[in-house]
Amino acid sequence: MKKIEIEEAARVSAETAGGASIGRSDRRSFLARGAALTAGLVTTGASVATRAAEPSQALPVWSRTPGAPMRAYGTPSRFEEPVKRVLTPGYPKVSPGTGSSLTPLQALEGTITPSGLHFERHHNGVPEIDPAQHRLLIHGLVRRALSFSPQALARYPMTSRVAFVECAGNSARNTGPKPLQVTCGTIHGLVSCSEWTGVPLALLLDEAGIDPSAKWLLAEGADSAAMSRSVPLDKALDDAMIALYQNGERIRPEQGYPMRLLLPGWEGNMNVKWLQQLKLTAGPAHTKDETSKYSDLMPDGKSQQFTFVLGVKSTITRPSFGMTMEGAGLYEISGMAWSGSGRIARVEVSTDGGVSWKDARLQGPVLPKSVTRFRLPWDWNGAPALLQSRAIDDKGNVQPDRKTWTAQYSPAHRYHNNSIQTWRVQADGSISNVYI
Amino acid sequence: MKKIEIEEAARVSAETAGGASIGRSDRRSFLARGAALTAGLVTTGASVATRAAEPSQALPVWSRTPGAPMRAYGTPSRFEEPVKRVLTPGYPKVSPGTGSSLTPLQALEGTITPSGLHFERHHNGVPEIDPAQHRLLIHGLVRRALSFSPQALARYPMTSRVAFVECAGNSARNTGPKPLQVTCGTIHGLVSCSEWTGVPLALLLDEAGIDPSAKWLLAEGADSAAMSRSVPLDKALDDAMIALYQNGERIRPEQGYPMRLLLPGWEGNMNVKWLQQLKLTAGPAHTKDETSKYSDLMPDGKSQQFTFVLGVKSTITRPSFGMTMEGAGLYEISGMAWSGSGRIARVEVSTDGGVSWKDARLQGPVLPKSVTRFRLPWDWNGAPALLQSRAIDDKGNVQPDRKTWTAQYSPAHRYHNNSIQTWRVQADGSISNVYI
Repeated sequence: MKKIEIEEAARVSAETAGGASIGRSDRRSFLARGAALTAGLVTTGASVATRAAEPSQALPVWSRTPGAPMRAYGTPSRFEEPVKRVLTPGYPKVSPGTGSSLTPLQALEGTITPSGLHFERHHNGVPEIDPAQHRLLIHGLVRRALSFSPQALARYPMTSRVAFVECAGNSARNTGPKPLQVTCGTIHGLVSCSEWTGVPLALLLDEAGIDPSAKWLLAEGADSAAMSRSVPLDKALDDAMIALYQNGERIRPEQGYPMRLLLPGWEGNMNVKWLQQLKLTAGPAHTKDETSKYSDLMPDGKSQQFTFVLGVKSTITRPSFGMTMEGAGLYEISGMAWSGSGRIARVEVSTDGGVSWKDARLQGPVLPKSVTRFRLPWDWNGAPALLQSRAIDDKGNVQPDRKTWTAQYSPAHRYHNNSIQTWRVQADGSISNVYI
Repeated sequence: MKKIEIEEAARVSAETAGGASIGRSDRRSFLARGAALTAGLVTTGASVATRAAEPSQALPVWSRTPGAPMRAYGTPSRFEEPVKRVLTPGYPKVSPGTGSSLTPLQALEGTITPSGLHFERHHNGVPEIDPAQHRLLIHGLVRRALSFSPQALARYPMTSRVAFVECAGNSARNTGPKPLQVTCGTIHGLVSCSEWTGVPLALLLDEAGIDPSAKWLLAEGADSAAMSRSVPLDKALDDAMIALYQNGERIRPEQGYPMRLLLPGWEGNMNVKWLQQLKLTAGPAHTKDETSKYSDLMPDGKSQQFTFVLGVKSTITRPSFGMTMEGAGLYEISGMAWSGSGRIARVEVSTDGGVSWKDARLQGPVLPKSVTRFRLPWDWNGAPALLQSRAIDDKGNVQPDRKTWTAQYSPAHRYHNNSIQTWRVQADGSISNVYI
């Protein structure tokens, strides 16, 4: 059957390869504009048909021989091997034990980050924790201290939510004096988005009994860096979760196995991984991890501490640096938007460096403190273009342009960069990262 | 700091380990009932504190030494190695090239199935397809045949949606004469749920131009089994998608790399993997894959063909066979519900074998043709219990009980089993699969 089908197709392809059908289209303008693209496809189709008209051994090997057996746990195709996390330059020689790896955003679609590609940020490597020996201790200003094994936590009522986690240092690579010519993920890939499942922290704090004098809690990880951050109690009682599962399975080691603190919308390292204690306190602890890092250097030389909520932000993932436009015609501009304050209300896209803007389509469901995918068809005329996206959240926060964002801080400041970024498309189809 | 903190906790634990705080609780009844459980936890807490009071080398090794370096692509913790797909008994000796592997539902939470654990069903193994050589041909009753490379498809407008895929043979293991004592995933694990991203098929058919005489299409895979199914054109124009991405990354080989047909809510093998052609036709093709299999054997001995839409269904994943209840007290009953017809409207849970029912909480967002997680707290009194879940969708379809479902078919029938399943909890805490 297969041979006959495709020979028929060869005839049809031959008829249409000359472009006879182009121009006969009465479809709506979007598809009519795709005609040039489609003609190219028909040519490709002819070559497929040619191959199929040869003897059957010309079929690809995967259509002639049994495939691979089943496996207990799958991995991506070997043809997708280039899609991997980007390790910080020089790692691990420059900084053994500490560093980051970034999600290759430009190669991904949708909103979920596959767990194998979730970004990493560690201060002394990834601990390999035996869950049978791990405990979460809740103590300090509570009526009774409590200790929970992962198994005990699994008996409590759980909740699931999709939430992004973003490192406060994300996009720091775009704060330097010159724009780096690197992929979207290498600039912005310290953000990932997962479905997290776990126990609402409010339930566990209620079990322990909160002393009225408690206003903060100190969260500490079991890694050998003993990563620790101070968290206002209000956030803990709002939407904080002790996350046990990530995208359906137990949380990955790089994301905190067997449990992490999840503070939706708040800067990444407060979502303490390998969580082993929560101590309720009257004030913040001013740990090394919240004084030496993650603070904002202001123009007057002072540092501003405790910028918890991540700003509204977006980035165009496709087209972007490393890809080449295949000539004038229709493309889809695709990107990600997120806000620590709530839902994305709107994403505007400009192809002329911010002179004019169009509303992109938002992919539903649009969830709070989650990544929202936006898409906009773009009929590229082949002339140089400047692509930008600007996100607006449901609290009215607007993603700032680069100059406005930069003017708020000291020139040496690197954290919390949520400014608009620009891809320049050249007439030859190449794409670069530019500052405007 | 760490040492002091946990010594303090040791004192508090000692105070509360005697149970002095139990009964002082003024919290709402759910948590008050958790008191017995919590007291157990405090005992555990004391042992943590004891360990911490010893010299620092008594800290676990992961808190004393640098952890593992960063990796380009992550995997689960080695402690989660038992969480894997279940291969069909005897595979591959009994049936080389064909068989299935099942998702370990009982070990998962939330709604997304991690791609590495998505169920598999292959008829001649998993082809290893070079995407540069792969084409999707659309032909037959169209104005012009078109052929698309994966790269060409990536220029078309995309859409993302969360959808389950379920094999028509799922839960066939529970149609035998005696209930098997196996895990939830071994019975029901031919269902998985992913975020899929791809090009709406309606767009591509519009590009090709549908001949008015076309009413069906024949979808064929590039695997060496040339898996092929007939699909009504109406479905193709409704919500069908050529899926290129699964949970953010390119679709996995076992799920159809580099592209599959996605027909949300319709039986699994119509969602043809490794899709290489769609031929528009006037009628169904009656391929081997839709006549020799996936048809319903009726009481009169005739087979009913083309049961496309999957029924409304649910299963309790926790507690379930293979787990042991730790004694009377509070537990969370957790499970999955889905319907091929639309959204889950309600899930009822019974702990007395269907005599009485309670509404479970549905985890939002409740999406159509997707898995919905349901949860219900259960205060187990330690007596034998019969756990059941019953799902109802927004079209008013109700999941049938076992007897009603069975009565529709020949005793030899195995497909499309969406009947209610029962877990028996014994007084000793053991759990078994029973027919009632």
